[in-house]
Amino acid sequence: RRRLFFIAGPCVLESRDLALGVAERLAEVAHGLGAPLLFKSSFDKANRTSLGSFRGPGLDQGLRILEDVRRQSGLPVISDVHAPDQAAAAAQVLDVLQIPAFLCRQTDLLQAAGRTGKPVNVKKGQFVAPHDVGPLAQKVLETGNRDVWLTERGFSFGYNNLVVDMRGLAIMGQSGCPVVFDATHSVQLPSGQGGCSGGDRRFVATLARAAVAAGAHGVFMEVHPNPDQALCDGPNSLPLDQVEALMKQLLAIYELINGGEA
Amino acid sequence: RRRLFFIAGPCVLESRDLALGVAERLAEVAHGLGAPLLFKSSFDKANRTSLGSFRGPGLDQGLRILEDVRRQSGLPVISDVHAPDQAAAAAQVLDVLQIPAFLCRQTDLLQAAGRTGKPVNVKKGQFVAPHDVGPLAQKVLETGNRDVWLTERGFSFGYNNLVVDMRGLAIMGQSGCPVVFDATHSVQLPSGQGGCSGGDRRFVATLARAAVAAGAHGVFMEVHPNPDQALCDGPNSLPLDQVEALMKQLLAIYELINGGEA
Amino acid sequence: RRRLFFIAGPCVLESRDLALGVAERLAEVAHGLGAPLLFKSSFDKANRTSLGSFRGPGLDQGLRILEDVRRQSGLPVISDVHAPDQAAAAAQVLDVLQIPAFLCRQTDLLQAAGRTGKPVNVKKGQFVAPHDVGPLAQKVLETGNRDVWLTERGFSFGYNNLVVDMRGLAIMGQSGCPVVFDATHSVQLPSGQGGCSGGDRRFVATLARAAVAAGAHGVFMEVHPNPDQALCDGPNSLPLDQVEALMKQLLAIYELINGGEA
Amino acid sequence: RRRLFFIAGPCVLESRDLALGVAERLAEVAHGLGAPLLFKSSFDKANRTSLGSFRGPGLDQGLRILEDVRRQSGLPVISDVHAPDQAAAAAQVLDVLQIPAFLCRQTDLLQAAGRTGKPVNVKKGQFVAPHDVGPLAQKVLETGNRDVWLTERGFSFGYNNLVVDMRGLAIMGQSGCPVVFDATHSVQLPSGQGGCSGGDRRFVATLARAAVAAGAHGVFMEVHPNPDQALCDGPNSLPLDQVEALMKQLLAIYELINGGEA
Repeated sequence: RRRLFFIAGPCVLESRDLALGVAERLAEVAHGLGAPLLFKSSFDKANRTSLGSFRGPGLDQGLRILEDVRRQSGLPVISDVHAPDQAAAAAQVLDVLQIPAFLCRQTDLLQAAGRTGKPVNVKKGQFVAPHDVGPLAQKVLETGNRDVWLTERGFSFGYNNLVVDMRGLAIMGQSGCPVVFDATHSVQLPSGQGGCSGGDRRFVATLARAAVAAGAHGVFMEVHPNPDQALCDGPNSLPLDQVEALMKQLLAIYELINGGEA
Repeated sequence: RRRLFFIAGPCVLESRDLALGVAERLAEVAHGLGAPLLFKSSFDKANRTSLGSFRGPGLDQGLRILEDVRRQSGLPVISDVHAPDQAAAAAQVLDVLQIPAFLCRQTDLLQAAGRTGKPVNVKKGQFVAPHDVGPLAQKVLETGNRDVWLTERGFSFGYNNLVVDMRGLAIMGQSGCPVVFDATHSVQLPSGQGGCSGGDRRFVATLARAAVAAGAHGVFMEVHPNPDQALCDGPNSLPLDQVEALMKQLLAIYELINGGEA
Repeated sequence: RRRLFFIAGPCVLESRDLALGVAERLAEVAHGLGAPLLFKSSFDKANRTSLGSFRGPGLDQGLRILEDVRRQSGLPVISDVHAPDQAAAAAQVLDVLQIPAFLCRQTDLLQAAGRTGKPVNVKKGQFVAPHDVGPLAQKVLETGNRDVWLTERGFSFGYNNLVVDMRGLAIMGQSGCPVVFDATHSVQLPSGQGGCSGGDRRFVATLARAAVAAGAHGVFMEVHPNPDQALCDGPNSLPLDQVEALMKQLLAIYELINGGEA
Repeated sequence: RRRLFFIAGPCVLESRDLALGVAERLAEVAHGLGAPLLFKSSFDKANRTSLGSFRGPGLDQGLRILEDVRRQSGLPVISDVHAPDQAAAAAQVLDVLQIPAFLCRQTDLLQAAGRTGKPVNVKKGQFVAPHDVGPLAQKVLETGNRDVWLTERGFSFGYNNLVVDMRGLAIMGQSGCPVVFDATHSVQLPSGQGGCSGGDRRFVATLARAAVAAGAHGVFMEVHPNPDQALCDGPNSLPLDQVEALMKQLLAIYELINGGEA
């Protein structure tokens, strides 16, 4: 039986220094807890609510930073691709390719990612029912790539709110794919009239605990040394200094539910 | 620190024998696990979807059965009241009065229950946001009764479905009232075209584990020795022989989250 | 073919004078437009969000006022009943009995109303799908009373919001019952953290026009000479001086859709 | 004051013959009713639920067919683009470029479409609140292109269902952009367990009438001579021979609401 695994990092690659600093600390924590952890950060925020928001360093520079993160921290790295023609370059550096939630139905993108042979983490759209993930995974599986992960990040619940249906984690798990719970995007309050998504980080730990108890195999968290100054998703990011305690608690719940580390 | 407590029993008082039999087994389990448990069963299902459905033995006979349950099993008993004029009689027998979810806004009912001095468990309506439970509790508190419990049983999520927002348990807990998670009604699929609510008991354990991990203080479960023959809520009832294992797991999660039994 | 009919009046019977004044004006408008109109006002707001809110004059005094309204204005009157034991007295005065949305599943109330022989207007709960109104109507029909009306007043849509699914009016119409659209409660923003429901009267006309175009047979509107001073539902009430223009437009849409007045 | 305008055509360019045949009939109807109408059909369905579904002829061949439709029918043509690098070629042929709903937040796509100078019709995502369309439009407006249209096609409402909030049309109209109601995608039942979206064309007319009454400036409808044999979206397509009667009724409602053709 696998252990609970983690995906963590700052929302966007604000700078090489930030990425390396966060990765170093995460590697330390993961090593201390004996837990698998992948470093995640975006090179491009291609769908920010507002035009004025920071988008990131772009593909080329972003991949160079992630390569450095990988080498210096020893952590595997994961990032998201937004167009089919990014997949091959991204796969040169990344250990796992991620498909953004809004793009989870774009056939060409899923297949380009699948054809790289790297594991593909498909984020379930805010408009996709948990019992409908089969066809999403299928688009990758058909390329011959059997390594598909599925991520829950909340479902549209009225306006400017998302809800996590914990039944969905069990249902998604029936696909046979590892199921990741995205604990920080799930507490987003999408858009909002100010042209920028809000969030409520108070509930990150609440939902992460519940998701692991409900059967998630992995947990994703945006972390930042100083969320209030983050260039992206600050309101829902977890402060870096709270990560270790939460990971420890989640590991304990996972082991309790799944019958030990084996 | 309180221990996790349980409320359990058959949906409706089908017969004196069934009630006593279930209560005896629940008392045994609760005693074995050292967990507080209240016996719950309804004397009247006053809002069944369909006219043809079994409603129960009514107030008088129902209270007599519950009195016997209480005496023979040693378990405290809780049941729901549907009209202000039922409160006083019910309070003669019951340890806790419960307000049905559809009736959670009926001022006179909440106040009649409050005035009995017995603890009042208010089920949050499928149309009430977790941050709006304050005014529900207030209607009881104003009678001078300080012992209000709040129960989450899912929120309307599109047609014929409910969703449990685990953030809501944390939010409801900020009221200072004990928060109960109703694990079996939360998996109901309301109404449906056949004139009878369905449900999916596969998710009772999933949601109960998640709710305890998210911060619930108590868990409610409808149980039945043979759910497929239950006269009410069979599809979402937990088989009696699965109760002990689930309670054990929930107690372990609760202790893990809340720092031991104290 | 019937003409479009209206139900209108102040949310609650604030005073005898207010009721008579509004009724007189409504009778004038209805007469001028040749449209059937019933006067509606509540004698008791039994489920106000907050304890401090005005509840109304109660059953006895309320019915006396409604009797005067009926006599002086010549308008038929409709009001809501909240308990089975109110039905007989209410039926002495009222032309139509109304079942509040939260109570639409309470079997005894529906049957007590049905047994009076008066038409019964059942408001569909915020948690009831349009294809599930059959069992609601059935509880009245089984008493031998064939005169059931069904009212749409919005469905829970996330927290503190309601949405009107216009498909639902067509679906509810398949029951054979007249379908009323409640244009002012449908724009309510339930509860909200201040302990009092808000609303947005800007959308009353938008939704009423859409509902008639979608197939509603009747339209309900709370009206008030001065909504900002109303003791109940002010934020979603229509100013009395805007009623005539809206009714005129709705009648025109109805005739256009339904092929003339016949 | 503009007249109500229409966008119609088969979901996907199944064949040159089908496109030309449908366009000829639509041109005839539009001419007879004196109503502006654009022909719409997709050259690529880039996000079909299932891999096995028909995707269309692709960009090059699709644009050639649309060019022929334009020339032979005299109708302006509109189609959707899925990647920034499609915008320039599409703008050589199309009168209006459309942004698919799932892609409505992809900054680069919106800006590429905007830079062509052609009008851009942005479909509001199933996860975007009507009061949040401002930032969507802004991404196009910032390119200097002032001709942005906004289309409502339903919002996620529980699983496998969409709801149209008619208030949203009024809210979207406050942006100053023309608001189109997509009457056929709004009755889709997304995904569903069979790996293919369903739909219910019974409600196309119901919703279209309601939307025009609520303030829509344009109506989009997928039409097909034989919906049951359509290669895409058959369940929610309108039969071609029903288009004229519906358009006529919608024009009458529009004129009634907006005070004549002027």
